[in-house]
Amino acid sequence: MAVKPVMTIDALEAFLAQEFPQINEGGPFYAVTEIEPGAAVLRLMPDRRHLRPGGTVSGPTLFALADLGAYVVILAHIGPVALAVTTNLTINFLRRPADGVPLYSRCRLLKLGKRLAVVDVIIVDKEGTIVAQASATYSIPPQTETAVK
Amino acid sequence: MAVKPVMTIDALEAFLAQEFPQINEGGPFYAVTEIEPGAAVLRLMPDRRHLRPGGTVSGPTLFALADLGAYVVILAHIGPVALAVTTNLTINFLRRPADGVPLYSRCRLLKLGKRLAVVDVIIVDKEGTIVAQASATYSIPPQTETAVK
Amino acid sequence: MAVKPVMTIDALEAFLAQEFPQINEGGPFYAVTEIEPGAAVLRLMPDRRHLRPGGTVSGPTLFALADLGAYVVILAHIGPVALAVTTNLTINFLRRPADGVPLYSRCRLLKLGKRLAVVDVIIVDKEGTIVAQASATYSIPPQTETAVK
Amino acid sequence: MAVKPVMTIDALEAFLAQEFPQINEGGPFYAVTEIEPGAAVLRLMPDRRHLRPGGTVSGPTLFALADLGAYVVILAHIGPVALAVTTNLTINFLRRPADGVPLYSRCRLLKLGKRLAVVDVIIVDKEGTIVAQASATYSIPPQTETAVK
Repeated sequence: MAVKPVMTIDALEAFLAQEFPQINEGGPFYAVTEIEPGAAVLRLMPDRRHLRPGGTVSGPTLFALADLGAYVVILAHIGPVALAVTTNLTINFLRRPADGVPLYSRCRLLKLGKRLAVVDVIIVDKEGTIVAQASATYSIPPQTETAVK
Repeated sequence: MAVKPVMTIDALEAFLAQEFPQINEGGPFYAVTEIEPGAAVLRLMPDRRHLRPGGTVSGPTLFALADLGAYVVILAHIGPVALAVTTNLTINFLRRPADGVPLYSRCRLLKLGKRLAVVDVIIVDKEGTIVAQASATYSIPPQTETAVK
Repeated sequence: MAVKPVMTIDALEAFLAQEFPQINEGGPFYAVTEIEPGAAVLRLMPDRRHLRPGGTVSGPTLFALADLGAYVVILAHIGPVALAVTTNLTINFLRRPADGVPLYSRCRLLKLGKRLAVVDVIIVDKEGTIVAQASATYSIPPQTETAVK
Repeated sequence: MAVKPVMTIDALEAFLAQEFPQINEGGPFYAVTEIEPGAAVLRLMPDRRHLRPGGTVSGPTLFALADLGAYVVILAHIGPVALAVTTNLTINFLRRPADGVPLYSRCRLLKLGKRLAVVDVIIVDKEGTIVAQASATYSIPPQTETAVK
């Protein structure tokens, strides 16, 4: 897709810190590591709160990593619109991540419409093995609202 | 489906407390409130850690409520098999929950096979409004492993 | 949901015959059998073209039955808007239908917003056994366009 | 993934012709055009039966193209196992294909386990634009059955 990022990594992290302070509380855990046309990467350094007994990263943590990564790649291309909301997310859990950190959420815009954005997400572990795959749909608020910002 | 629960509410809660102690740490937050043939209800009394700024229950919390409810209705019908794992979960976020607690995850077995179980989940708020809908697929470990327990 | 149908079964079937003549070409195969607040039922009497060798109803046929049923329940509540389009459909195939016809697509509105509608679908065979479950999201065109019709 | 195809394009097409003769009846419409480690491409040359009035490729046709492509990439890597069945398919419809044919279903194995395979599918039109994205889960019959082949 002929899309171009409109936010830098620093601007995105500042926006997340303001809108979702709780995700990095006691952390940092999440960091945006790459932005390029149509794509972004979000990294998670999990700690105890993200794990199941035995050390496996929990399902809700993988969901959050996919969902937040999708949000990041959308914001990176439309600017800081706090009101974009997930309407649908499908996640396939494929295998347990290798021991040790981090995990990466590699996110790619499949569609960036006026009303809907669709993102493909691949979560890989530190060895590059695919741990989970997800697709997420976000609803984007009408442009008249965001234009005034 | 002609299925019959094989675990009581008390047995399920004891199993969850042993296998997933972290979900009710500082709580209790989650409680199994109903088990009947082919169905179960899981209740969440969210606190601050489950919320987004502004008071909305977070997406990962709704995911966890759907996923855990699906696990509960499956275990209720096959017994305490810790190794059942989610392979796929699709969730539709429909509307913001009414202010105030609790949320209920109403889970219904669509299929309970030897290898796969599929569960339909409706999450409702305290006014009975549907907040989210999900379907989850769990992989069930071979019976030879569970038979020896 | 406090929704009310605005189309009759006859009006819906006339609209489908005009917009999608090919679905009942050589038929009729599809018929709307029920409309009630928030719900509708679409019946399929499959013939050879809908079957796999061996007599099983094909996956694409079950998909079409779910998708068309979702369209029907939405139109029944917003009126004949030909431009509503599916944006996402998730389907779980649960078991083979019993021999013999018909199949029923039982569709229920989970959300009917200005921009998006979400429908839960259960496909049952002639014995009432659940054959498949689906959830579908439709994008609804802006009301200004439809209001002029 | 360290996987290796075990069937050639010719062998796959011969198998499809035998198991699913109806898909190319009056055609050919579907052809396997690429097989490589972990991936395959299925091409569709749609004719009238695959279209909606106005010339758009229908939703059930895109579903069938995704589902059949997923089946092809799995068979290519496990051999001709007719009993592999779709258990779940999620499809996102992104945009209308460009006028003219063909469509390509680019399929990639995300997981190839003993019991489940998960495939990521991208459907592109003749200009390479992504028309739809899907993920499909197939249940694979026990190896004792396939081992004797």
